This record gives sequence, C-alpha cells and structure tokens, in this order.
Amino acid sequence: MKTFTPSHTEHEPEACSQRLSGLDDALYAIGGKWKLRILHAMQGGKKRFNELQRNISKISARVLSNELKDLEQNGFIKRHIFTGMPVVVDYELTEYSATLSELLTVMSAWGIMHRERTKEKFQAV
Amino acid sequence: MKTFTPSHTEHEPEACSQRLSGLDDALYAIGGKWKLRILHAMQGGKKRFNELQRNISKISARVLSNELKDLEQNGFIKRHIFTGMPVVVDYELTEYSATLSELLTVMSAWGIMHRERTKEKFQAV
Repeated sequence: MKTFTPSHTEHEPEACSQRLSGLDDALYAIGGKWKLRILHAMQGGKKRFNELQRNISKISARVLSNELKDLEQNGFIKRHIFTGMPVVVDYELTEYSATLSELLTVMSAWGIMHRERTKEKFQAV
Repeated sequence: MKTFTPSHTEHEPEACSQRLSGLDDALYAIGGKWKLRILHAMQGGKKRFNELQRNISKISARVLSNELKDLEQNGFIKRHIFTGMPVVVDYELTEYSATLSELLTVMSAWGIMHRERTKEKFQAV
C-alpha cells in the first residue's frame, strides 16, 4: 500500500521550490489516472464497489480495489462493512475529501474549456 | 503521438456528466505523472532540454522527449530550433498554457496543505 511521504526539495532552485514541492505532493497523493475520477464518482453519497466500477469507465476491479485502499489510507474515503448475509461493503467520502472540491471544480472547468477550444481548432482546419 | 479526443458522456448519469467529462478531458490532456511538472518547470522563460531534465527529478530523456511532443501538439509549449553549430533547441510556454495557472496554483496550495496535515497526523501517532 502506498503511503504518503512528503517530497524533498533540496535540489530545486529556491525561488519556486515551495510551489513545485506542493505540486509534487499533490500529484503523489491524487495524481494518476484514477484517483480524482473515483473521488468525483463518489460525490452524492455512499457507493458500493460495483456501482463505482460501473460509473468509472474502463477501470478494472483490481485497480479500483487498490486505488480505494490508497484513498482510504490517505484519509479521503471511509469504508463501511455490514456483516449481514451477504456482507455489504460501501464507500463514502470523508470530510477531508471536501478540501479537494476547489481543485475538482477548477480542473473540470478547464477541461470543458480545453475541449471547446480543441473542437474549434479542428473545425477551423 | 497522443492527440486530444473529446470524451464521450453517453453512459454517465445526466446530473454530473458535464463535470465528469470536463475532468476526463483535463486528465487526458494534462494528467499523468509529468505534464504539470514539466509545465511548472518551464515557468520563468525558455528552457533547453537538458535544463528541463535537470530540473525535473527522475524523468528519463525518452519520457521527457515524448511528453514535450504531446505538450507541443496540444498547444501548451513552442519549440524553437536555432540551426547554428551546434543546433540549439529550446522550449517555451505558449500564451495558452497560462490558462492552467489557476489549476497549478490551487493544486500546489492543496499539496502544501496536505503535506502539513500529514506531518501533523504522523506526529500525533
């Protein structure tokens, strides 16, 4: 399981090392292909594993399972286990995950803008 | 070379499909381990290939070369070739890349906050 390690900045120019290391730390915790997609798919309440897999295009069960463990380890989600028959497991965002909402909003808005611009560029060719 | 393809949203629930597809488009264009790090390392003026490789911890020449091609293809950077002896190639951010500055700022600030919180958590254990 991947745990969070603060980045090192000794080799970076002083001027922007704080900001670059912030970026590194963010990419370490929530970078990669899936984490932000999973956190986004969990908005709107508790989700079961299969629901998440259905909602996130092309993610395998193995990858989803590993990513959920990382997200739980880093404090973004909670796992609830109900020991009935059958055992039910669901996942929920923590309060801490709300600290990512500005980032998700800015990134989504940028993606929509970029898509529109790209469409225009292709149409203009 | 990877070119940008707008994402498809047909299979997603209506309510958040616009935002999710924005996130997908953003992750497609600037996701992955390196692109935002490279764009950040290019702030402050033109950079040569070797300078970039020195400034970006642990990136291989092959990966850096491929990522720079993608970034150029997507309109974030320009490549200048000076055909003297020796040939000099440098890279510069485009005006369009400035559309990412809010995202870089929000992500860096979040990374710094997350690092501090993680330190506190470890110290408390």
